[in-house]
Amino acid sequence: MNSRSSAILLAGLFGAALALPSCKPRSEAGAITSDAAEKTYVAPGKYDEFYNFVSGGFNGQVSVYGLPSGRLLKIIPVFSVFPENGYGYSEETKAMLNTSNGFVPWDDQHHLELSQTDGKPDGRWLFANANNTPRVARINLSTFKTEEILELPNSGGNHSSPFCTENTEYIVAGTRFSIPMGDKQDVPINSYKKNFHGTVSFIKVDSLSGRLQLAFQILLPGVDFDLSHAGKGPSKDWFFFSCYNTEQAHTLLEVNASQRDKDFIMAVNWKKAEQYVRDHKGALRSTPYIHNVYTEKTHSATSSTETQVTILDPTELKDFVYFIPCPKSPHGCDVDPSGEYIVGSGKLAALIPVFSYTKIQQAIAGKQFDGDYAGIPVIKYEAALYGEVQKPGLGPLHTEFDGKGNAYTSMFVSSEVVKWSLKDLKVLDRAPTYYSVGHLCIPGGDTKSPYGKYLIAYNKITKDRYLPTGPELAQSAQLYDISGDKMKMILDFPTVGEPHYGQALPAEIISKNSVKYYKIEENGNPYVTKGEKEAKVVREGNKIHVYITAIRSHFVPDNIEGVRLGDEVYFHVTNLEQDWDIPHGFAVKGAANSEILIMPGETCTLKWIPTAIGVFPIYCTDFCSALHQEMQGYVRVSPAGSNNPLLFGTNLADSGAVAKK
Amino acid sequence: MNSRSSAILLAGLFGAALALPSCKPRSEAGAITSDAAEKTYVAPGKYDEFYNFVSGGFNGQVSVYGLPSGRLLKIIPVFSVFPENGYGYSEETKAMLNTSNGFVPWDDQHHLELSQTDGKPDGRWLFANANNTPRVARINLSTFKTEEILELPNSGGNHSSPFCTENTEYIVAGTRFSIPMGDKQDVPINSYKKNFHGTVSFIKVDSLSGRLQLAFQILLPGVDFDLSHAGKGPSKDWFFFSCYNTEQAHTLLEVNASQRDKDFIMAVNWKKAEQYVRDHKGALRSTPYIHNVYTEKTHSATSSTETQVTILDPTELKDFVYFIPCPKSPHGCDVDPSGEYIVGSGKLAALIPVFSYTKIQQAIAGKQFDGDYAGIPVIKYEAALYGEVQKPGLGPLHTEFDGKGNAYTSMFVSSEVVKWSLKDLKVLDRAPTYYSVGHLCIPGGDTKSPYGKYLIAYNKITKDRYLPTGPELAQSAQLYDISGDKMKMILDFPTVGEPHYGQALPAEIISKNSVKYYKIEENGNPYVTKGEKEAKVVREGNKIHVYITAIRSHFVPDNIEGVRLGDEVYFHVTNLEQDWDIPHGFAVKGAANSEILIMPGETCTLKWIPTAIGVFPIYCTDFCSALHQEMQGYVRVSPAGSNNPLLFGTNLADSGAVAKK
Repeated sequence: MNSRSSAILLAGLFGAALALPSCKPRSEAGAITSDAAEKTYVAPGKYDEFYNFVSGGFNGQVSVYGLPSGRLLKIIPVFSVFPENGYGYSEETKAMLNTSNGFVPWDDQHHLELSQTDGKPDGRWLFANANNTPRVARINLSTFKTEEILELPNSGGNHSSPFCTENTEYIVAGTRFSIPMGDKQDVPINSYKKNFHGTVSFIKVDSLSGRLQLAFQILLPGVDFDLSHAGKGPSKDWFFFSCYNTEQAHTLLEVNASQRDKDFIMAVNWKKAEQYVRDHKGALRSTPYIHNVYTEKTHSATSSTETQVTILDPTELKDFVYFIPCPKSPHGCDVDPSGEYIVGSGKLAALIPVFSYTKIQQAIAGKQFDGDYAGIPVIKYEAALYGEVQKPGLGPLHTEFDGKGNAYTSMFVSSEVVKWSLKDLKVLDRAPTYYSVGHLCIPGGDTKSPYGKYLIAYNKITKDRYLPTGPELAQSAQLYDISGDKMKMILDFPTVGEPHYGQALPAEIISKNSVKYYKIEENGNPYVTKGEKEAKVVREGNKIHVYITAIRSHFVPDNIEGVRLGDEVYFHVTNLEQDWDIPHGFAVKGAANSEILIMPGETCTLKWIPTAIGVFPIYCTDFCSALHQEMQGYVRVSPAGSNNPLLFGTNLADSGAVAKK
Repeated sequence: MNSRSSAILLAGLFGAALALPSCKPRSEAGAITSDAAEKTYVAPGKYDEFYNFVSGGFNGQVSVYGLPSGRLLKIIPVFSVFPENGYGYSEETKAMLNTSNGFVPWDDQHHLELSQTDGKPDGRWLFANANNTPRVARINLSTFKTEEILELPNSGGNHSSPFCTENTEYIVAGTRFSIPMGDKQDVPINSYKKNFHGTVSFIKVDSLSGRLQLAFQILLPGVDFDLSHAGKGPSKDWFFFSCYNTEQAHTLLEVNASQRDKDFIMAVNWKKAEQYVRDHKGALRSTPYIHNVYTEKTHSATSSTETQVTILDPTELKDFVYFIPCPKSPHGCDVDPSGEYIVGSGKLAALIPVFSYTKIQQAIAGKQFDGDYAGIPVIKYEAALYGEVQKPGLGPLHTEFDGKGNAYTSMFVSSEVVKWSLKDLKVLDRAPTYYSVGHLCIPGGDTKSPYGKYLIAYNKITKDRYLPTGPELAQSAQLYDISGDKMKMILDFPTVGEPHYGQALPAEIISKNSVKYYKIEENGNPYVTKGEKEAKVVREGNKIHVYITAIRSHFVPDNIEGVRLGDEVYFHVTNLEQDWDIPHGFAVKGAANSEILIMPGETCTLKWIPTAIGVFPIYCTDFCSALHQEMQGYVRVSPAGSNNPLLFGTNLADSGAVAKK
């Protein structure tokens, strides 16, 4: 394969535009209205109006921005290690990154979904997917911490995820890359059509605790599932998934998976699937997958291994999975606030099909099928179609809604956001993006009740938008005021990682429940030290457990002797503060580990295996008071076999550094 | 020790203010002028005026903000692993984090210094220190990449660093924590006064390449060196270091290192020291330390072990090191643009002493000493003093200058920035910060030619400044317009990590030299693949080397078979693009590794040790084109001992997935 042949293919599809995704749109200077500064400025001491949770893409995390300021309020570590606060390094959090492949320090975080009650964001949890090593995560929005990560078996990467049903009964996950599964995995790649399969997973969310459980998987032909959304209102029992590569290509997909005129949106009746599972119509498949749960009761995570999953086969169990043809490699698969319209965004298509839930039901009832695909009925395109948005632009990717009857679709190739009417499918407005927008987000824009004030475009190409930073640039986002008839770009702001998607909601839904610190008396960590008098150092074989407290501005103990080469030292640091925003950090010189950042009332553990004899400083890494710089101590490491006794203390006597244990 | 006794001590120093560093200053609403929005708004398509390089503190990195917008333009990985782009994970960059303690994935990055020519920032390099495992780094400002990390022996943490002389002849490093050194390291902690020492290091910077070399260290008594700055103009041959803990306490420093009325600023004549080294007056001490250098010639880093260092002993070699008394635990040690005034900021002091370089020289010539401290002459306070700023506020930490005769000092305890006149030391203005400001920064504010338009306060306490994000909050920065007589707060923006210090300079000094991509023909990586025809897969024992290319939107090869369990697979990915902002990413499902992000023209290597048989997806992680989602492939892993031949290719034939090697 040479790159020319694919360029020719693409030129045939779109002309030069596709090969130049970053061609600069016409001057935008005139588009910036004079009140843009006032509209986006959040004065010192004032708050942003919306939280915007943004997927981190290849940084594996979730970032939190304020709107309309575009200020980065926080990075929440989810799927990647985070040396900044010890996530993935502390003894309490290491387990969060366990998988059936072992400890995986990174992932590719693509999409987010806020938990919903009656189709509206309820501010309890945020779900996140991992595209590489297939997983879903749940973040607690009262603490902004990742509380759960569930691995997905029978999956080769999880992209069409973690969208949820309207009362958060389920979140879903679909294989981006189909793979051979079960007991026949070492097969030739060119046996793809015979041996490779996809699955979509339905993960039950406990309505009180949020706890995740893989309820069932649906076994599907070997295609690439891309995005998804639940129905709502009348369509609430259904879930819709887009897929590409219905050609079932296994090499040079750029060309070979762009052959068919239409791929599919898959409609799944999850209520019926649920009933099939209850009726034991599924097959139990044994397969190990890892489930990691963090609890604030102990401020710790544990891993467990799940061993089986229920598989539903739609070629045997009829009437709950259907394919709907959708032009060229659909990406976005979006349901309007009423639940009646399903918008497919074929990224190589020059129009946007809008499907009707009512017509889909009629087509199923009337068996208006165009045969089947791998044993699954294919509904006739026209039978499901409400209508097509004509000439919307090039490269439609994703659509959200403003709750006022309008839809907004991102156009990657023509670098614009296009506003159109759900009523008559007429294009109403278009606004340039800089450059090559991927997804977009309107607060609540995929729910029953959008807050249609702002739209954020998450762009894929940055080039000259900011001061240059060498070859590697931040991604570019743009904020539009969509409160009027015409979209107005009001802010351009860089983002960390690669923001594939974002969700936003009014700040007060979350801010009113935000936890400020942990109560020390409720700390159930097995290594907690609830007061300085309880501080101690204990040897268990070659393990040294240091029960150490931190409070402005000293550690107890801060002098420790009796550690020997060959020992493993566990510093269990309890932050005794009981006030907001008084974290302490802890580090030891030369440790092959990150720091730990300990919130008030919390216990975190840093493991250190000394590699040399000597005296090693320990200190607080988070500037906590005027005497923070003095918050330090020492650990003496003696040779293996040394007889130095275990001694520890803080300021016990002039004559001896430390107390004897 | 109980916390009450230290609280009592502190209350005695400052009253209640110290115990409540975060008490909210009076309402600032009235302080925000109506033009603040316009002053800080950078319209879409426009550029910021200044780069602001900000230390990441406990995230170990350097962050780059634009001013006046406060937008985060980039995080530059330096001392911590960065799963986002593979820094510390790729085969090419792993070596950067080697130390004599082994691979250290994290550090605590406190201060920055821009390289200077004639005392002005020249835009070539940015230096950064590591406070925990003592190191200095050099970042190339044409690529925004870390090019060099040098470990410092005989050091227990490097805080007073990496400030530079006015033509970047040297950068410096000083031990924050003194430790026992040399051949007597396993000693009781309470033998501190006898056995513990500090050092300051002078690191030569090659004027053409920037290459670092540890020129010499000065052996010093066991105190804690805190900050430093070089002289300039008349004082350019001198370097000034602040230190605390001249009490030489080793436990509960909060109390025990706050006893003496004055600690010291240490003045070092580095020109004389340099001459002593040339004259072989130093002692060679054997000690291993690691030196890591990254070069764009191969886009790779290598580590080497240095084995010795020259030590100068100021108790033997007289006349190049002097102590100047400075009230209570000085933190900042700042030299004004003229080079005549040295400002010490005693963090427990209620005044700010300003020393005169001229008077220091006269005192040395006239031997106006108050005896010595550990064998080093102590200049009489009054003999060195130009004057004192009276009642500046509480908790002075750090001072910068506007080039118009004014100094600006951050006040941690009273949460304010105080502007005062260098001429008469009178306080001219004070502005609140929210809350508890640490360092501050004026563009060029520590150089001969400040750009006195803005001041940024980097605050230590955030609390209610932004929408809450649970117990862990971002740090808070504030931007002030200092172009007029009165400081005006114009923006409040959160920051990542903990910004201990920042440096800023006009954007054009850097932007004009920013590299956009690497020329593929100059790529000297030993595993480069300069065209798709050269792509190959080679077995060497149990090592599989995959020479793979990436270009929109496919890999060559994208189907690989013949890998066996027990093999180590090295994906050497070359990005063949030759345009700006077209990175490709690369990941393999389930790898115990991060992704790699490959810039145009670059080669990066991801090591993967398969843990199971099966077919594993590989894909591009950075959305590169409309067909990015199709940029994927598969690697088949067969059992150990399998006879499956090594096969690879992209779209070679319908009948066979791959070509035989």
